[in-house]
Amino acid sequence: MFALDPQLAADTRFVAARTLCDVRLMDDRRFPWLVLVPRVDGASELFDLSEVDRRRLVDEAAEAGRALKRATGADKINIGALGNIVRQLHVHVVARFAADAAWPGPVWGFGARTPYDDLAPTIDALRRALG
Amino acid sequence: MFALDPQLAADTRFVAARTLCDVRLMDDRRFPWLVLVPRVDGASELFDLSEVDRRRLVDEAAEAGRALKRATGADKINIGALGNIVRQLHVHVVARFAADAAWPGPVWGFGARTPYDDLAPTIDALRRALG
Repeated sequence: MFALDPQLAADTRFVAARTLCDVRLMDDRRFPWLVLVPRVDGASELFDLSEVDRRRLVDEAAEAGRALKRATGADKINIGALGNIVRQLHVHVVARFAADAAWPGPVWGFGARTPYDDLAPTIDALRRALG
Repeated sequence: MFALDPQLAADTRFVAARTLCDVRLMDDRRFPWLVLVPRVDGASELFDLSEVDRRRLVDEAAEAGRALKRATGADKINIGALGNIVRQLHVHVVARFAADAAWPGPVWGFGARTPYDDLAPTIDALRRALG
Protein backbone atom coordinates (compact mmCIF):
# COMPACT_ATOMS: atom_id res chain seq x y z
CA MET A 1 0.00 0.00 0.00
CA PHE A 2 1.29 3.43 -0.95
CA ALA A 3 1.49 6.17 1.67
CA LEU A 4 3.04 9.58 1.10
CA ASP A 5 5.89 10.49 3.42
CA PRO A 6 4.66 13.00 6.07
CA GLN A 7 7.34 15.58 5.29
CA LEU A 8 6.55 15.48 1.57
CA ALA A 9 2.87 15.80 2.45
CA ALA A 10 3.61 18.87 4.59
CA ASP A 11 5.95 20.61 2.10
CA THR A 12 4.09 19.96 -1.17
CA ARG A 13 0.56 20.08 -2.63
CA PHE A 14 -1.08 17.71 -5.10
CA VAL A 15 -1.19 18.94 -8.70
CA ALA A 16 -1.95 15.94 -10.92
CA ALA A 17 -1.72 12.15 -11.15
CA ARG A 18 0.23 10.45 -13.90
CA THR A 19 0.44 6.72 -14.69
CA LEU A 20 3.21 6.13 -12.15
CA CYS A 21 3.66 9.35 -10.18
CA ASP A 22 1.76 11.96 -8.30
CA VAL A 23 2.96 15.38 -9.45
CA ARG A 24 3.11 17.79 -6.52
CA LEU A 25 4.09 21.44 -6.14
CA MET A 26 6.73 22.41 -3.59
CA ASP A 27 5.15 25.12 -1.47
CA ASP A 28 8.10 27.47 -1.98
CA ARG A 29 7.48 30.58 -4.02
CA ARG A 30 11.21 31.21 -4.49
CA PHE A 31 11.35 28.55 -7.22
CA PRO A 32 8.77 26.91 -9.55
CA TRP A 33 9.36 23.42 -8.22
CA LEU A 34 7.58 20.13 -8.92
CA VAL A 35 8.08 16.90 -7.03
CA LEU A 36 7.19 13.59 -8.68
CA VAL A 37 6.41 10.76 -6.28
CA PRO A 38 6.06 7.26 -7.75
CA ARG A 39 3.13 5.48 -6.11
CA VAL A 40 5.35 2.51 -5.26
CA ASP A 41 5.69 1.46 -1.67
CA GLY A 42 9.17 0.97 -0.24
CA ALA A 43 11.16 2.49 -3.12
CA SER A 44 14.05 4.73 -2.10
CA GLU A 45 16.60 4.47 -4.90
CA LEU A 46 16.01 4.78 -8.65
CA PHE A 47 17.25 1.21 -8.97
CA ASP A 48 14.59 -0.02 -6.54
CA LEU A 49 12.04 0.44 -9.34
CA SER A 50 11.30 -2.19 -11.96
CA GLU A 51 12.55 -1.43 -15.46
CA VAL A 52 9.01 -0.55 -16.56
CA ASP A 53 8.47 1.84 -13.67
CA ARG A 54 11.93 3.40 -14.06
CA ARG A 55 11.17 4.22 -17.68
CA ARG A 56 7.74 5.58 -16.76
CA LEU A 57 9.44 7.76 -14.17
CA VAL A 58 11.88 9.26 -16.67
CA ASP A 59 9.08 9.80 -19.20
CA GLU A 60 7.00 11.59 -16.57
CA ALA A 61 9.99 13.64 -15.36
CA ALA A 62 10.76 14.70 -18.95
CA GLU A 63 7.11 15.65 -19.50
CA ALA A 64 7.07 17.67 -16.26
CA GLY A 65 10.33 19.37 -17.16
CA ARG A 66 9.11 20.32 -20.62
CA ALA A 67 5.84 21.69 -19.21
CA LEU A 68 7.64 23.65 -16.51
CA LYS A 69 10.06 25.13 -19.03
CA ARG A 70 7.19 26.15 -21.32
CA ALA A 71 5.11 27.59 -18.45
CA THR A 72 7.90 29.59 -16.83
CA GLY A 73 10.44 30.35 -19.56
CA ALA A 74 13.14 28.96 -17.25
CA ASP A 75 16.78 29.21 -18.25
CA LYS A 76 17.42 25.64 -17.10
CA ILE A 77 15.48 22.76 -15.61
CA ASN A 78 17.17 21.00 -12.69
CA ILE A 79 16.23 17.40 -12.00
CA GLY A 80 17.32 15.55 -8.90
CA ALA A 81 16.64 12.47 -6.81
CA LEU A 82 18.51 12.90 -3.53
CA GLY A 83 16.58 11.43 -0.61
CA ASN A 84 19.17 12.11 2.08
CA ILE A 85 16.44 13.46 4.36
CA VAL A 86 13.20 11.98 2.99
CA ARG A 87 13.88 8.37 1.97
CA GLN A 88 10.70 7.82 -0.03
CA LEU A 89 11.72 7.98 -3.71
CA HIS A 90 10.85 11.38 -5.17
CA VAL A 91 12.20 13.37 -8.09
CA HIS A 92 12.56 17.14 -8.03
CA VAL A 93 11.93 19.06 -11.26
CA VAL A 94 12.83 22.70 -10.70
CA ALA A 95 12.67 25.74 -13.00
CA ARG A 96 15.86 27.76 -12.61
CA PHE A 97 16.66 31.30 -13.65
CA ALA A 98 20.01 33.07 -13.88
CA ALA A 99 18.42 35.73 -11.63
CA ASP A 100 17.11 33.37 -8.92
CA ALA A 101 18.50 33.48 -5.39
CA ALA A 102 20.39 30.19 -5.50
CA TRP A 103 21.81 30.40 -9.06
CA PRO A 104 24.01 28.69 -10.17
CA GLY A 105 23.99 26.49 -7.07
CA PRO A 106 21.35 23.88 -6.29
CA VAL A 107 18.05 24.72 -4.57
CA TRP A 108 18.31 21.81 -2.16
CA GLY A 109 19.41 22.99 1.26
CA PHE A 110 19.39 26.62 0.12
CA GLY A 111 17.89 29.02 2.70
CA ALA A 112 14.37 28.57 4.01
CA ARG A 113 11.28 27.43 2.15
CA THR A 114 8.97 30.42 1.60
CA PRO A 115 5.32 29.37 1.28
CA TYR A 116 3.01 30.91 -1.33
CA ASP A 117 0.36 33.34 -0.11
CA ASP A 118 -2.12 31.48 -2.32
CA LEU A 119 -1.19 28.21 -4.04
CA ALA A 120 -4.31 27.94 -6.20
CA PRO A 121 -3.27 30.11 -9.20
CA THR A 122 0.08 28.36 -9.50
CA ILE A 123 -1.50 24.92 -9.24
CA ASP A 124 -4.08 25.88 -11.89
CA ALA A 125 -1.37 27.15 -14.24
CA LEU A 126 0.66 23.98 -13.77
CA ARG A 127 -2.36 21.76 -14.45
CA ARG A 128 -2.91 23.60 -17.71
CA ALA A 129 0.78 23.33 -18.61
CA LEU A 130 0.82 19.59 -17.86
CA GLY A 131 -2.26 19.12 -20.05
CA MET B 1 29.49 15.10 -33.90
CA PHE B 2 29.89 14.63 -30.16
CA ALA B 3 32.46 16.65 -28.26
CA LEU B 4 32.89 16.61 -24.48
CA ASP B 5 32.51 19.97 -22.76
CA PRO B 6 35.97 21.31 -21.76
CA GLN B 7 35.05 21.76 -18.08
CA LEU B 8 33.71 18.20 -17.85
CA ALA B 9 36.88 17.02 -19.55
CA ALA B 10 38.99 18.89 -16.99
CA ASP B 11 37.05 17.79 -13.88
CA THR B 12 36.40 14.13 -14.73
CA ARG B 13 38.21 11.06 -16.06
CA PHE B 14 36.92 8.37 -18.40
CA VAL B 15 35.87 5.12 -16.72
CA ALA B 16 33.75 3.17 -19.21
CA ALA B 17 31.53 3.50 -22.27
CA ARG B 18 27.93 2.35 -22.21
CA THR B 19 25.47 2.18 -25.13
CA LEU B 20 24.47 5.84 -24.77
CA CYS B 21 26.79 7.39 -22.20
CA ASP B 22 30.40 7.73 -21.28
CA VAL B 23 30.76 7.02 -17.57
CA ARG B 24 33.34 9.33 -16.01
CA LEU B 25 34.73 9.76 -12.50
CA MET B 26 34.63 13.19 -10.89
CA ASP B 27 38.19 13.88 -9.76
CA ASP B 28 37.09 14.73 -6.22
CA ARG B 29 38.13 12.35 -3.48
CA ARG B 30 35.62 13.80 -1.03
CA PHE B 31 32.79 11.84 -2.69
CA PRO B 32 32.61 8.70 -4.89
CA TRP B 33 31.04 10.50 -7.84
CA LEU B 34 30.25 9.34 -11.36
CA VAL B 35 29.14 11.56 -14.23
CA LEU B 36 27.25 10.04 -17.16
CA VAL B 37 27.51 11.97 -20.40
CA PRO B 38 25.22 10.91 -23.26
CA ARG B 39 27.16 10.98 -26.53
CA VAL B 40 24.50 13.17 -28.13
CA ASP B 41 25.49 16.50 -29.56
CA GLY B 42 23.49 19.57 -28.54
CA ALA B 43 21.45 17.99 -25.70
CA SER B 44 21.09 20.11 -22.59
CA GLU B 45 17.79 19.08 -21.01
CA LEU B 46 16.52 15.55 -20.29
CA PHE B 47 13.65 16.30 -22.67
CA ASP B 48 16.07 17.12 -25.50
CA LEU B 49 16.73 13.39 -25.81
CA SER B 50 14.59 11.05 -27.91
CA GLU B 51 12.39 8.63 -25.95
CA VAL B 52 14.77 5.79 -26.74
CA ASP B 53 17.82 7.71 -25.54
CA ARG B 54 16.01 9.01 -22.44
CA ARG B 55 15.19 5.45 -21.41
CA ARG B 56 18.73 4.31 -22.12
CA LEU B 57 19.96 7.15 -19.94
CA VAL B 58 17.79 6.14 -16.99
CA ASP B 59 18.79 2.49 -17.41
CA GLU B 60 22.47 3.45 -17.42
CA ALA B 61 22.02 5.81 -14.44
CA ALA B 62 20.27 3.05 -12.48
CA GLU B 63 23.04 0.60 -13.38
CA ALA B 64 25.71 3.10 -12.29
CA GLY B 65 23.86 3.85 -9.07
CA ARG B 66 23.52 0.18 -8.18
CA ALA B 67 27.21 -0.45 -8.92
CA LEU B 68 28.30 2.55 -6.88
CA LYS B 69 26.13 1.51 -3.96
CA ARG B 70 27.55 -2.03 -4.05
CA ALA B 71 31.16 -0.82 -4.43
CA THR B 72 31.03 1.79 -1.66
CA GLY B 73 28.30 0.70 0.77
CA ALA B 74 26.81 4.20 0.47
CA ASP B 75 23.91 5.21 2.67
CA LYS B 76 22.17 6.89 -0.28
CA ILE B 77 22.78 7.46 -3.96
CA ASN B 78 22.11 11.01 -5.18
CA ILE B 79 21.24 11.50 -8.84
CA GLY B 80 21.05 14.89 -10.46
CA ALA B 81 20.96 16.65 -13.82
CA LEU B 82 21.49 20.34 -13.17
CA GLY B 83 23.52 21.98 -15.91
CA ASN B 84 23.39 25.52 -14.59
CA ILE B 85 27.11 25.91 -15.21
CA VAL B 86 27.94 23.23 -17.81
CA ARG B 87 25.10 23.09 -20.34
CA GLN B 88 26.05 19.81 -22.00
CA LEU B 89 23.62 17.20 -20.65
CA HIS B 90 25.27 15.15 -17.92
CA VAL B 91 23.91 13.14 -15.00
CA HIS B 92 25.64 12.99 -11.64
CA VAL B 93 25.49 9.72 -9.68
CA VAL B 94 27.02 10.27 -6.26
CA ALA B 95 27.57 7.92 -3.32
CA ARG B 96 26.58 9.68 -0.12
CA PHE B 97 27.34 8.82 3.49
CA ALA B 98 25.80 10.18 6.68
CA ALA B 99 29.39 10.98 7.72
CA ASP B 100 30.41 12.86 4.56
CA ALA B 101 31.24 16.56 4.67
CA ALA B 102 28.14 17.79 2.81
CA TRP B 103 25.52 15.48 4.38
CA PRO B 104 22.53 15.87 4.23
CA GLY B 105 22.94 18.72 1.75
CA PRO B 106 23.82 18.29 -1.91
CA VAL B 107 27.41 17.95 -3.16
CA TRP B 108 26.90 20.46 -5.97
CA GLY B 109 28.43 23.80 -5.08
CA PHE B 110 29.77 22.43 -1.79
CA GLY B 111 33.30 23.60 -1.01
CA ALA B 112 36.19 22.94 -3.35
CA ARG B 113 36.86 19.88 -5.49
CA THR B 114 39.75 17.91 -3.96
CA PRO B 115 41.61 15.86 -6.60
CA TYR B 116 42.74 12.29 -5.93
CA ASP B 117 46.45 11.70 -5.41
CA ASP B 118 46.15 8.74 -7.78
CA LEU B 119 42.97 8.11 -9.75
CA ALA B 120 43.95 4.68 -11.10
CA PRO B 121 42.89 2.44 -8.16
CA THR B 122 39.47 4.10 -7.94
CA ILE B 123 38.92 3.86 -11.69
CA ASP B 124 39.95 0.18 -11.63
CA ALA B 125 37.53 -0.54 -8.76
CA LEU B 126 34.69 1.25 -10.55
CA ARG B 127 35.32 -0.64 -13.79
CA ARG B 128 35.08 -3.91 -11.87
CA ALA B 129 31.91 -2.73 -10.11
CA LEU B 130 30.30 -1.69 -13.40
CA GLY B 131 31.16 -5.11 -14.88
